[in-house]
Amino acid sequence: MEKLILHEDPISGNCYKIRLVAAHLGLPLERRAYDIRKGETRTPEFLAGVSANGRIPVLQVGDRFLAESGAACWYLAEGSPLIPADRFERADMLHWMFFEQYHHEPNVATLRFWLGIIGEGGLSDAQRAAVPGRRAAGEAALALMDAHLAGHDFFVGGGPSLADIALYAYTHVADEGGFALEHYPHLGRWLGRMAALPGHIPMEE
Amino acid sequence: MEKLILHEDPISGNCYKIRLVAAHLGLPLERRAYDIRKGETRTPEFLAGVSANGRIPVLQVGDRFLAESGAACWYLAEGSPLIPADRFERADMLHWMFFEQYHHEPNVATLRFWLGIIGEGGLSDAQRAAVPGRRAAGEAALALMDAHLAGHDFFVGGGPSLADIALYAYTHVADEGGFALEHYPHLGRWLGRMAALPGHIPMEE
Repeated sequence: MEKLILHEDPISGNCYKIRLVAAHLGLPLERRAYDIRKGETRTPEFLAGVSANGRIPVLQVGDRFLAESGAACWYLAEGSPLIPADRFERADMLHWMFFEQYHHEPNVATLRFWLGIIGEGGLSDAQRAAVPGRRAAGEAALALMDAHLAGHDFFVGGGPSLADIALYAYTHVADEGGFALEHYPHLGRWLGRMAALPGHIPMEE
Repeated sequence: MEKLILHEDPISGNCYKIRLVAAHLGLPLERRAYDIRKGETRTPEFLAGVSANGRIPVLQVGDRFLAESGAACWYLAEGSPLIPADRFERADMLHWMFFEQYHHEPNVATLRFWLGIIGEGGLSDAQRAAVPGRRAAGEAALALMDAHLAGHDFFVGGGPSLADIALYAYTHVADEGGFALEHYPHLGRWLGRMAALPGHIPMEE
């Protein structure tokens, strides 16, 4: 595989997903850090040279650039056990990855960023007004995951896949956004299973 | 392939994506309609029997159910020319599909639903307050697509892929949400190329 460079902000769970996939697969990953709170991904250099969308993560593969965490995880994991061999299960894994980006991350990750990282005093009026809606949608996403995990050890098939890694990243720090994980016992046990996997790495390192 | 049933609302662009993929590939698709404006996807029957997330589209494959439009499109298109054969291009296609669900659909599709379907008078205060932010983010997504298409006939590789189909669905009706597509000339020509493909079907039929 060509040289891999992760353009990231270490506080981002979306970036952590890619580091977690690389760790599970034993792939070497060079890291370049940007501080999103200082606008370091909106500079002309970043927009022209890394990603026109001005956001991290971006996985650099040789001299090509891949934005969106799910796409980068897929690129790294193709041909590995992290992507199920069965056609329906493979699509079902993508279902959970799209679920994460549409129903989970904009709520669970955003409230962590707003309340746990920026802090309530630093929010705009529009952000403050959006908190209750994001809270309700985030709780709904966590409840749906918990109900699924009542009958399954992992999200798809019999072992961990990219779906679990994508959902682990922001769920395991959901308390930083004010979500009470003790309300979701099956989710809690799944978080434990994920952290106990060989190859697992913590978010901060 | 097992019998395919699309659980859908005909006004939804996310459902149209799946019908468009099936049309391009000549796959028969039975259709079951639900009216999301009447809450028909939040009934106990739908939640227990079709999708616990209470949303359409859901692709039924035999007796299994697949939510999230991108996952359903992937399931149908595996092994076809709508998914690039090259590993990097395949991941880059997923990048555009995740971009669509995160940066495009919540803005371009939501404003079409709020302003073009519900109508401004029917919006809640929270929805009304969210319009300017969604407008700006939707214009940014369209501008990014337009810039990419300045140098490419299709989003990835040399021909149409699931990335084009995913992005076509809500872009071609963006004017219904008040977006002025004449500001994006490359986008306009790409919409024309997509509609001229053999196998293309319109959204309403």
